[in-house]
Amino acid sequence: MKNIKLTIMYDGSRFLGWQRLGSEHGEKSIQDILEQNISKLLGEAIKIIGSGRTDTGVHAFAQIANFHTRSTMGLEDIFRTLNHSLPEGISITDIEEVQKEFHSRYDAKSKTYEYHIDTREVANVFTRKYALHEPFSYDINAMKEASRYLIGEHDFQAFASRMNDDRTTIRIIESIDIDKEEDEIRISIKGNGFLYHMVRIMVGTLILVGKGKMKPEDIKRILESRNRKNAGPTVSSVGLFLKRVEY
Amino acid sequence: MKNIKLTIMYDGSRFLGWQRLGSEHGEKSIQDILEQNISKLLGEAIKIIGSGRTDTGVHAFAQIANFHTRSTMGLEDIFRTLNHSLPEGISITDIEEVQKEFHSRYDAKSKTYEYHIDTREVANVFTRKYALHEPFSYDINAMKEASRYLIGEHDFQAFASRMNDDRTTIRIIESIDIDKEEDEIRISIKGNGFLYHMVRIMVGTLILVGKGKMKPEDIKRILESRNRKNAGPTVSSVGLFLKRVEY
Repeated sequence: MKNIKLTIMYDGSRFLGWQRLGSEHGEKSIQDILEQNISKLLGEAIKIIGSGRTDTGVHAFAQIANFHTRSTMGLEDIFRTLNHSLPEGISITDIEEVQKEFHSRYDAKSKTYEYHIDTREVANVFTRKYALHEPFSYDINAMKEASRYLIGEHDFQAFASRMNDDRTTIRIIESIDIDKEEDEIRISIKGNGFLYHMVRIMVGTLILVGKGKMKPEDIKRILESRNRKNAGPTVSSVGLFLKRVEY
Repeated sequence: MKNIKLTIMYDGSRFLGWQRLGSEHGEKSIQDILEQNISKLLGEAIKIIGSGRTDTGVHAFAQIANFHTRSTMGLEDIFRTLNHSLPEGISITDIEEVQKEFHSRYDAKSKTYEYHIDTREVANVFTRKYALHEPFSYDINAMKEASRYLIGEHDFQAFASRMNDDRTTIRIIESIDIDKEEDEIRISIKGNGFLYHMVRIMVGTLILVGKGKMKPEDIKRILESRNRKNAGPTVSSVGLFLKRVEY
């Protein structure tokens, strides 16, 4: 029995999110598409384990997943054949055999998400599906200052969309980088785990700070309140990328 | 009579190139779409003059065009209404009134084109329509060295796809910048004018140098030969962007 780890890039605008939807569902998730293609290729029913779900519309530069197989097909063959059979918008960018205990979700040490904001007055036609179009002359320094309050170990309940299955709402944010290049702001957030919609609410809150509608130091108060209503809006998935998963 | 200058951004993968195709033609060019939308908006038959044509598939960050009108509609109104009526993939990014003598094509002093090459083993799903996928570990320094032979005033007949209407095949290339960031090479070429397919043949030739199939100093010989057969292939329009037009 081999355990195979895949690195997957996908254009979230073309699919119904990561999570398995099941065969009774008409349309397909990215996990469904991968399982069907791999099962067909290897001639056995394959279940793949992702590092975590991504919602509809969320993109991935490097999602990680693994699956177990009895197949003796070589990795290079799987890599090439699978990439040929996958639809436009999903690519396997790396494949490797890993220890049989490796688990994409349980073993993930940290994840990095990146959010793109198009600040042009008229939307950039090339990033329409890959950036939130929200024109404004943002105060980047205020956004950076605000982001510092989010770094570290905190109870992020105010930054989660709903009560969820997580036993705790405490997470560690390792770093937040905010860069502006020409007319695009990129916010990169690395943490040991994320609550439901957490990145999108953090970005929605940083946008309010960048627009002067909230002060950097308000973040402290929002965290302490542990009340979702005090944070900013949940921004669209259009600008969100899963950039890296570390083990 | 006002003379109005437009800056236009378009995703070339969605349209049949810049050049007017005429009403008997089923599909539409970008020029056709702009003329129809502006004519309808201003209530008079508008002809627009572009800085030059771009072939099918070629993108533009900032194409320039101008048109004359008797309309008294304000520029802000034209800008906003036009952007609402244009199809996804074409945007007006700037509008201004210019002197009545201004001519987008005749007055252009220089143009800058940029070409994107995706060097990843498996194509980046986000740049499939915006970069040539040509995986290789390119020798960037050799490409830069080769590009220096192209800079200056030369007879570029060897870098033109066919005999054309141009009175002369002499052009001045002001600069060529080659940058590699992560898995994408960007080649930016600025010149006082370009022959048919000239940028795409220059890039095709630089790719051969980057792959070690041609030496940097071969460029000198190719230029002197004035024979198209000696230069590299005409690469696809997929990675080509009209980046800037200077007046």
